[in-house]
Amino acid sequence: MAEPRTRPKRATIFDVAAEAGVSRGTVSRVLNGEPYVSQSAREAIEAAIEKVGYVRNTAARNLATQSSGAVALIVHEPHSVFVEDPNIGAILLGTNAALSEADYQLVSLIIDTDRDTERVVSYLGGGFVDGAIVVSAREDDPIADALQRLRIPTVLVGRPDTAPELPSVSIDNRTSARQITERLVATGRRRIGMIAAALDRDSGRDRLAGFRDALGDRFDATLVVDVPLYSFHAGQEGMRALLDRAPDINGVFAASDAIAAGAVDVLRADGRRIPDDVGVVGFDDSAWALRCQPALSTVRQPADRLGARAAELVLDEIRTGERRSGVVLLPTEVVWRDSA
Amino acid sequence: MAEPRTRPKRATIFDVAAEAGVSRGTVSRVLNGEPYVSQSAREAIEAAIEKVGYVRNTAARNLATQSSGAVALIVHEPHSVFVEDPNIGAILLGTNAALSEADYQLVSLIIDTDRDTERVVSYLGGGFVDGAIVVSAREDDPIADALQRLRIPTVLVGRPDTAPELPSVSIDNRTSARQITERLVATGRRRIGMIAAALDRDSGRDRLAGFRDALGDRFDATLVVDVPLYSFHAGQEGMRALLDRAPDINGVFAASDAIAAGAVDVLRADGRRIPDDVGVVGFDDSAWALRCQPALSTVRQPADRLGARAAELVLDEIRTGERRSGVVLLPTEVVWRDSA
Repeated sequence: MAEPRTRPKRATIFDVAAEAGVSRGTVSRVLNGEPYVSQSAREAIEAAIEKVGYVRNTAARNLATQSSGAVALIVHEPHSVFVEDPNIGAILLGTNAALSEADYQLVSLIIDTDRDTERVVSYLGGGFVDGAIVVSAREDDPIADALQRLRIPTVLVGRPDTAPELPSVSIDNRTSARQITERLVATGRRRIGMIAAALDRDSGRDRLAGFRDALGDRFDATLVVDVPLYSFHAGQEGMRALLDRAPDINGVFAASDAIAAGAVDVLRADGRRIPDDVGVVGFDDSAWALRCQPALSTVRQPADRLGARAAELVLDEIRTGERRSGVVLLPTEVVWRDSA
Repeated sequence: MAEPRTRPKRATIFDVAAEAGVSRGTVSRVLNGEPYVSQSAREAIEAAIEKVGYVRNTAARNLATQSSGAVALIVHEPHSVFVEDPNIGAILLGTNAALSEADYQLVSLIIDTDRDTERVVSYLGGGFVDGAIVVSAREDDPIADALQRLRIPTVLVGRPDTAPELPSVSIDNRTSARQITERLVATGRRRIGMIAAALDRDSGRDRLAGFRDALGDRFDATLVVDVPLYSFHAGQEGMRALLDRAPDINGVFAASDAIAAGAVDVLRADGRRIPDDVGVVGFDDSAWALRCQPALSTVRQPADRLGARAAELVLDEIRTGERRSGVVLLPTEVVWRDSA
């Protein structure tokens, strides 16, 4: 697929106001054909519109095309992850920036319960959005099913194995997990465990597979614990379980930075020095990584770019009517800091 | 204003499917009048609808009333705060839960740039939402202006002084800040500084005023630094500035937990023991408070309840057509842990 174009910034109503030397409200009144604007202001605004190259936006376009000018970002995460995970916010802002450039409105829809699922499906059927981006889709996700049935252009962030017909933007979780585990091995650790998470999703399964790839014959299934969520508390629980099973553990790959931060918390409370006694590595390079003491060695995942790229693909399908299925993998990098 | 009612959970399409012993998709096809459903399944579903008391949802209602069945949550925060601040996520989930109960769809709209502001105003004018909740509105916020002009039922979370005609849900920041500062004073600290933030908003100004109230004659303006954002990095910068000005400082009130966490980070790097050498207190009782080492003494702000209460007020105005302006203040409490 082609690389994203850098588009010139389009002029906004604020540029028009500044150029004309009037308030935004006055520009808005002229654009909306409202009365009570002086002839001189009207002329200044019309000259400014031409000078800065202002193009009427979504609402005006809707009248002509019957489209909504909106794209949904559907986030399907349990409460604790939604509140804790900086990746969600970064994906959201990346999506917003890319849609904004194209004058599309991002509307975020949150799914927390079955009731939410049902209502979102109904909303999507109402013609309120021209496209959709689904974050953290599950296998057999009823939202992905509904979007396909409704023929709404859709891109997944992440790559559920069960909806291969939908295009998706993701990272190579397996290779990335292998790379960071190999670096951890290279520090001389011999009792390396993993706190795996979200094994109902490809991201979680692939990170575990990459860990196993790196250890090869030395992989020991008893040193893997799995937790349901990519969260700090799940990391604490996972680390306690690992310490119970293997008090001599000296390396830990946590499936996310939030999990790693929880693991570090438990290790310190248990009197272990990091990295001296136990090396810990995470995944994401989210805000958790630098907050952690010591700062986490981790895999940098370009969360904002995932959102932006997904938006570009959805817009492309909206404009052309052509679905280009397949997986776009964005590059990651290992970031080595102080925790291992 | 009356306390929120606890509503019985309404039956969903999933309840109908379970009762009828068919898939959700089959129920959906019957509800949408689609063919290819067996007569026996159709009868089972109709019986189940009656038994569980299922009521057709938003999309069906729209046909009758021309309303959208959607309420916007408009979040106006700079990038770093949006990604870092757990309060935003908690407000969002609280709002979602309350709207979901009433079968309204939450659509979140993010404002990061002037271009976003303009496009959101245009979107709001398109009839896509029946009401709006605005988080972190600024003084002279163009979104609040537009919502009033469009006569869209609106509730603010937080209480900008400049839009008193709009109802709002908030906390008493000033009293809460006074209370936690008084507790800090009671630990015997005599050189107490504050890292104030977001002084362009009432929350930031009121927290500073409460700090001043608590110290009375002992208030020393040179021990107050102000930072632009409620963020970890702002807290680090603010603490460095305070240490430069007053190396003998022994108490700090940070205007948020994220700021307090940044301050703790800098104090520890400077070799200060907490709480022995310096007592630090925060504000929010967000996820930052427990992650901090030592755990933060702070003010608990009911972020999810702020969102839920705002949703209830918007729904009330949508249903009745009556605006009940005024400020609803939700209670806070001081939570004393280990950092002071």
